Amino acid sequence: MAVEYYDFGPHKIHHSSVFHTTDLSFAFVNLRPSVPGHVLVCPKREVKRVTDLTDEETIDLWYIAKRLGRQLENYHKASSLTFCLQDGPHAGQSVPHVHIHILPRKAGDYENNDDIYEDINEKEKQFHQSLQEDKEKRDRSIEGKRERSIEEMAIEADEYKKFTF
Amino acid sequence: MAVEYYDFGPHKIHHSSVFHTTDLSFAFVNLRPSVPGHVLVCPKREVKRVTDLTDEETIDLWYIAKRLGRQLENYHKASSLTFCLQDGPHAGQSVPHVHIHILPRKAGDYENNDDIYEDINEKEKQFHQSLQEDKEKRDRSIEGKRERSIEEMAIEADEYKKFTF
Repeated sequence: MAVEYYDFGPHKIHHSSVFHTTDLSFAFVNLRPSVPGHVLVCPKREVKRVTDLTDEETIDLWYIAKRLGRQLENYHKASSLTFCLQDGPHAGQSVPHVHIHILPRKAGDYENNDDIYEDINEKEKQFHQSLQEDKEKRDRSIEGKRERSIEEMAIEADEYKKFTF
Repeated sequence: MAVEYYDFGPHKIHHSSVFHTTDLSFAFVNLRPSVPGHVLVCPKREVKRVTDLTDEETIDLWYIAKRLGRQLENYHKASSLTFCLQDGPHAGQSVPHVHIHILPRKAGDYENNDDIYEDINEKEKQFHQSLQEDKEKRDRSIEGKRERSIEEMAIEADEYKKFTF
């Protein structure tokens, strides 16, 4: 039987948001992407820090990230990629489960190029919050910030399922 | 004969700043670190983008980054790590040669956690500039920003040469 949910720290990621899996890793689309094509790659085993990864897990994550990045960049007609791994709470990691952010970048996508990091963190905090709180409270607390529907995310994930790894 | 300089894009990195090498990669200390222990890991082969790396190079870089990160964090009594790979000019990459930034992070090291990325980019631009310009022009253009001496960098590199990989 196929897995219905994937563990991402204390959260559950619905399988329809997951577009690539290996024995060790999975890649999924974002509830609130900072830019179109902003996705996450994650080990299946729930470990907090990079140093906790086995070498096999490390290799698998970056093997996926490399191939995924190129195809995301082409798909979104972007020209660059931001790879970012916030390893620990004082590096801005909100969800205590190792994950690589991959973001297709374009000229002028942010007025100040580095504002994207602040946006990644803000979105990650909201994501963490939104999966912890009930819908009503969530709608109040993140007023004006649109959360994507599971259907919308599934459509994006279906596109990325066409990528080759 | 030992290598005197390592190529980093159009720049030359003096061997005394390089603290770890493999057949495929090298790691070196920074002319203007954003935080203590801010170092770079780089493939020896000059390639611009992550997609240009071979799988062996990708694996080697992240194998080093993982082990180096843990030891840097301990050495600097930090609590987290930022791993950042700006892949292409629109992701903030100034030097067109793949490189991973690794930064030991502590609580409150930046008032706004994400200001570190702006600082990384500013320092990288200065680094790029300082290696391209003559000393006098450099001193004018980056007034008030201290550039470390090669001796100071060699002392730091000697400390990291004690790390195990």
